[in-house]
Amino acid sequence: MDIDAYMQNLGEAARNASRAMARAHTNAKNAALQAIHRALGENRDIILAANARDMEAGRAANLEAALLDRLELTPSRFEGMLEGLRQVIALTDPVGEITDLAYRPTGIQVGKMRVPLGVIGIIYESRPNVTLEAAALCLKSGNATILRGGSEAIHSNKAIAVAIQSGLAVSGLPPTAVQVVETTDRAAVGRLITMPEYVDVIVPRGGKSLIARISAEARVPVIKHLDGNCHVYIDREANLNKAVIVALNAKTHRYGVCNAMETLLVDSPIAGEVLPQLAQLYADKGVELRGCPRTAALLECKEATEQDWYEEYLAPVLAVKIVSGIDEAIEHINKYGSHHTDAIVTENFTKARRFLAEVDSSSVVVNASTRFADGFEYGLGAEIGISTDKIHARGPVGLEGLTSQKWVVLGDGHIRG
Amino acid sequence: MDIDAYMQNLGEAARNASRAMARAHTNAKNAALQAIHRALGENRDIILAANARDMEAGRAANLEAALLDRLELTPSRFEGMLEGLRQVIALTDPVGEITDLAYRPTGIQVGKMRVPLGVIGIIYESRPNVTLEAAALCLKSGNATILRGGSEAIHSNKAIAVAIQSGLAVSGLPPTAVQVVETTDRAAVGRLITMPEYVDVIVPRGGKSLIARISAEARVPVIKHLDGNCHVYIDREANLNKAVIVALNAKTHRYGVCNAMETLLVDSPIAGEVLPQLAQLYADKGVELRGCPRTAALLECKEATEQDWYEEYLAPVLAVKIVSGIDEAIEHINKYGSHHTDAIVTENFTKARRFLAEVDSSSVVVNASTRFADGFEYGLGAEIGISTDKIHARGPVGLEGLTSQKWVVLGDGHIRG
Repeated sequence: MDIDAYMQNLGEAARNASRAMARAHTNAKNAALQAIHRALGENRDIILAANARDMEAGRAANLEAALLDRLELTPSRFEGMLEGLRQVIALTDPVGEITDLAYRPTGIQVGKMRVPLGVIGIIYESRPNVTLEAAALCLKSGNATILRGGSEAIHSNKAIAVAIQSGLAVSGLPPTAVQVVETTDRAAVGRLITMPEYVDVIVPRGGKSLIARISAEARVPVIKHLDGNCHVYIDREANLNKAVIVALNAKTHRYGVCNAMETLLVDSPIAGEVLPQLAQLYADKGVELRGCPRTAALLECKEATEQDWYEEYLAPVLAVKIVSGIDEAIEHINKYGSHHTDAIVTENFTKARRFLAEVDSSSVVVNASTRFADGFEYGLGAEIGISTDKIHARGPVGLEGLTSQKWVVLGDGHIRG
Repeated sequence: MDIDAYMQNLGEAARNASRAMARAHTNAKNAALQAIHRALGENRDIILAANARDMEAGRAANLEAALLDRLELTPSRFEGMLEGLRQVIALTDPVGEITDLAYRPTGIQVGKMRVPLGVIGIIYESRPNVTLEAAALCLKSGNATILRGGSEAIHSNKAIAVAIQSGLAVSGLPPTAVQVVETTDRAAVGRLITMPEYVDVIVPRGGKSLIARISAEARVPVIKHLDGNCHVYIDREANLNKAVIVALNAKTHRYGVCNAMETLLVDSPIAGEVLPQLAQLYADKGVELRGCPRTAALLECKEATEQDWYEEYLAPVLAVKIVSGIDEAIEHINKYGSHHTDAIVTENFTKARRFLAEVDSSSVVVNASTRFADGFEYGLGAEIGISTDKIHARGPVGLEGLTSQKWVVLGDGHIRG
């Protein structure tokens, strides 16, 4: 197989489809999503059988248990996929919205119109439900998509793609609006991320090393999500009841997620009161603490190394540091954090205001758990990922993050003098 | 000189300065801009003398006349620089604005806060006034800047930088908020565009080859402005008086600018009426026409080659094509254009609406000249450039394009259930 020619064909087809998608009205896009929903239901057994083949191959290849778990499409996960699709159908279509249309002194009217980005390349690992989720969000926002899933999920992804394309075909939208890369050759990824003439943006979803590699090699913009080293800072003026429930929830609600707290910062005057309480609750949940020297003296936990402050554990492990106040807390977060999501617990208005302004993270939180940082909780309806970049989209990326704005100028024969 | 170490020092200093800049209030930033204004006035003779040195060196090196012209700081250009600075002081500060703050069903409030991007690298050629313009816009939007001008303008740029930094110093903001790369070694550019740890975005300003090279090699996002191959399409239902003045203005108001029309598309039923009229007006201005075969037959002009449809002449040359209607016009523009600025002249509502929706350009215009596509005309106050990208900023980029938005979450001890 000539990978270059194959990818170029996919790219050209996607570029052509993107023009039809940009023109498609909401009704047409929703009808296509409905048709895909039907096709998925009708192809349920075929898709689950394809997934069983991937699982079997994965077991034979001794894939690790966590990966096999992400790969598996159980009947309930299949139902969850369909439910997610129904939610995307219910979302408001962002395309075509005109905002800020106002007269300029010259008499022209100038405003902005929301438009699709064009062609979006999605690169992801193992979880086959991403195939549908990403396709649905891109389709609803008027984009064409090229999907490149992990080789371990190739049969599942192809089977889902068949259903998606048959849904597109009956709805009158170009079937090439959603294409799955059908080769597991890694050169295909290399080509996908270096075709600016066909692909407008890449969204990688997966481990940090995948994303770092793609960012380093891409020749098109990448909406990327690196790590989530999130903090909660308990200020001396915190309501300690709120502090304890927020710090407990942020760490223990789920461990393997990017918006879980990884480092707890505690203001020194209240450390003696709040930390032993929290330590007991963490111990009950089996969370291992790694403390700064003062914390370690107070709690008799393991001492944290310099590396611990940078760590995204994604596990029942928590670094704890006693700080001298909000200045040190902000400095620590901006230095060691990953600019993802960071929270302060305080009743002090001025410190809340400073934390919001000075912490350089995609989400800054006062008196609430870091776990709220996601597209559903923020009202985006669904998310294609959480961006840790500052350019274009920051934080949870929903339909709007898959669009851009162009300028609209209306006149009546106006010329520039 | 160790370029790597030198650039790393600039980068670290800029990153540190960016934190102070992000916290700086509007009054402090405006006071700094005022102080820079004073310092420039006081250093006027030194700056003009430095520019004279650059001009002398440029003449000795046989730089071409156009480049020497851009390099020269005449007294009136110097006054224009100061006037531009006063305009930036008058602009509204975008930083800190919170929008869309609304309660979610869980009781948390979620909104967005506008924040600076951080550190912006500007790479430009010859025109020394860009040094001040770019520095002022970045400063006002709360960013730190590293400026890398052309080697031919090095004395002018250094002299302007001295005034900028002395203004910053007296105002209490970090002088390293604006730094000029003081080496002409090209390795400095290579380093500047590959330090994601210190530089958040690169804005190249200059010729197409400079921008293409930087985009290809950068390891940070680039807000780039490639070419402006702009079109005017005169529809059969145009008011021909409006069509003629718009088509004349779009081509002849200025030739060397990116929003000048480079190809005129004329709907076939009216070509015989409107083209001879326009041809006469263009001839009076000395504009050379290159027509499709039907145009060439009608006007006896030179025939356009396939390459002409792609060309950004930046000169008194115009490609002319007779098309079969709006479908062919839109197709031609999306295929051959550079997605910069394109206009339709028509009285037909439906066709105007289609053109706005379907032409994939950063500015789409109805019944007005393409020449309006700039930051001043759009009310942005000033622009750092015109982006032909879709990601982040599209079209004229003003202060807002130098900022991003982070999420703000407010609660009262809220946790995720």
